[in-house]
Amino acid sequence: MTLLPIRDDVLAAAERIVGQVIETPLREAEIRRARVWLKCENLQTGGAFKLRGASNRLLQLDEEQRARGVVAFSSGNHAQGVAIAARRLGIPACIVMPSDAPALKVEGTRAEGAEIVFYDRETEDRVAIATEIAKTRGATLVPSFDDPDIVAGQGTVGLEILEQMPGSPSQILVPTGGGGLASGIALACAEAAIVCVEPVGWDDMARSLAGGQIVPVEPNAPPTLCDALQTPRVSPITFGVLSAREAAAVTVSEAETREAVRFAWRELQLVVEPGGAVALAALLSGRVEALPGTVAVLSGGNIDPALHAELVA
Amino acid sequence: MTLLPIRDDVLAAAERIVGQVIETPLREAEIRRARVWLKCENLQTGGAFKLRGASNRLLQLDEEQRARGVVAFSSGNHAQGVAIAARRLGIPACIVMPSDAPALKVEGTRAEGAEIVFYDRETEDRVAIATEIAKTRGATLVPSFDDPDIVAGQGTVGLEILEQMPGSPSQILVPTGGGGLASGIALACAEAAIVCVEPVGWDDMARSLAGGQIVPVEPNAPPTLCDALQTPRVSPITFGVLSAREAAAVTVSEAETREAVRFAWRELQLVVEPGGAVALAALLSGRVEALPGTVAVLSGGNIDPALHAELVA
Repeated sequence: MTLLPIRDDVLAAAERIVGQVIETPLREAEIRRARVWLKCENLQTGGAFKLRGASNRLLQLDEEQRARGVVAFSSGNHAQGVAIAARRLGIPACIVMPSDAPALKVEGTRAEGAEIVFYDRETEDRVAIATEIAKTRGATLVPSFDDPDIVAGQGTVGLEILEQMPGSPSQILVPTGGGGLASGIALACAEAAIVCVEPVGWDDMARSLAGGQIVPVEPNAPPTLCDALQTPRVSPITFGVLSAREAAAVTVSEAETREAVRFAWRELQLVVEPGGAVALAALLSGRVEALPGTVAVLSGGNIDPALHAELVA
Repeated sequence: MTLLPIRDDVLAAAERIVGQVIETPLREAEIRRARVWLKCENLQTGGAFKLRGASNRLLQLDEEQRARGVVAFSSGNHAQGVAIAARRLGIPACIVMPSDAPALKVEGTRAEGAEIVFYDRETEDRVAIATEIAKTRGATLVPSFDDPDIVAGQGTVGLEILEQMPGSPSQILVPTGGGGLASGIALACAEAAIVCVEPVGWDDMARSLAGGQIVPVEPNAPPTLCDALQTPRVSPITFGVLSAREAAAVTVSEAETREAVRFAWRELQLVVEPGGAVALAALLSGRVEALPGTVAVLSGGNIDPALHAELVA
């Protein structure tokens, strides 16, 4: 039986990470003639929400654990979050990244002083690699979503939404890879409907919620621009929280995601990465109706400039 | 003798406009190996800081004045600020805009329900046109910077900087057209050095501060991408506040401004218009040294998508 985090854990995380993260803006926008709110985590330090969970986790390590370092695996955003939190606390960090991770994310992680170990997304198991490194060094493994402290840290996004919004959120659309952000927000915002949004083919949360148990993506899932959401399988923690909350899940097409990246740039003055734009895509495409009180999270903005220029051209 | 606004006016404005504007993020960035803070007013509702002053001014109109409407002249950002504030209060708004204003700004103003009257920047006097319309209709003229309530409203940007920043700002770099934003921030942030930043050739504030009196730009000032800063002459109010504070002023080249627009897009996930990027340009180019405690204001993000795509390509 997995011990699930609760709302008090999110409140504790919020106190713990004060000063480590910025309160990102909640912007009003008109979409399909409806007024919606956009939570701009693409403007978080490190360019994504990930610093919240990483800070909450690393701040709880004791002195000996800090000296032995941390290990994480990530396509980029969690990597940067862990690297920044580690640098601030003087903790050595080793990040296991796929060899096809966006150059911007690799550079951003390296610039924070982290050691990077590459693996092949097709043939190698990143969990095994990271676990082995952690074991050898006596370092602490910092999972990107399968961890109650990570989930609680990401949930602080939800607390900020509650504070910033006039009125209460009725539904919150969340880009979903492993579900750390969506489950954290579900804990924080107990009264709002939670809608997980995934790219077509990478619908592990949708399949799991529909099946009532953890179901991985189909083998040979199609390529996607949403590198941040290429998670083959959700975790007992994130699935447990979201199924208990009866969260919904929808998928969006690559074309819809591209249009959302363009919309954010053209109408909102924001650079959003494809994986960070899927919740907005669900509203723009009409896959989810923008009822009064709708919030969509823009979860990250780390996109290679050349790709962004190509998408908006 | 011009009656200058004081810090208490800014504090009163902040109370008055609560709920009308969003608290924009103050983002940390590394520039030339120094840590600086960027105040993201490009993310303000309407895409620029202008809604602050417009809201502060329009909220003080009585019922009869509101019924008669407001008139403003502006190349775009003030136009949108006035149009949004007027729509919210049910006030008819007429905006006098140059015929070469960016299409995005014209559309944004029209979308808020304002009436638009065009003028020729080369041959016509926008002040005279707006004054005549106001006189004919009994409407209230809402200047873009030559007004103590407008200055006090813009100054709320400075109050937010004081609240958001860890430590105190040592110097604040402000994109400067007529000087409304710079003088408002100067009132709010009494301990910080104020640096006005202008595009080459449109250095009315620099010339005025150097000359100890209001000096307009040279005739035939060169074309600039910074449509928001094409002000030929500062006002007694803005000059009065800034000269009393011994503000500094620097100019940046068009190439430096372009690089700042690119930097904001590439490194900060932000779309910033050229006029909104000049303070950042002054830091990136080294024209102003990024001393500890340096803040630069990104004052607006309303740029035609095609131009932005061209600048960052």
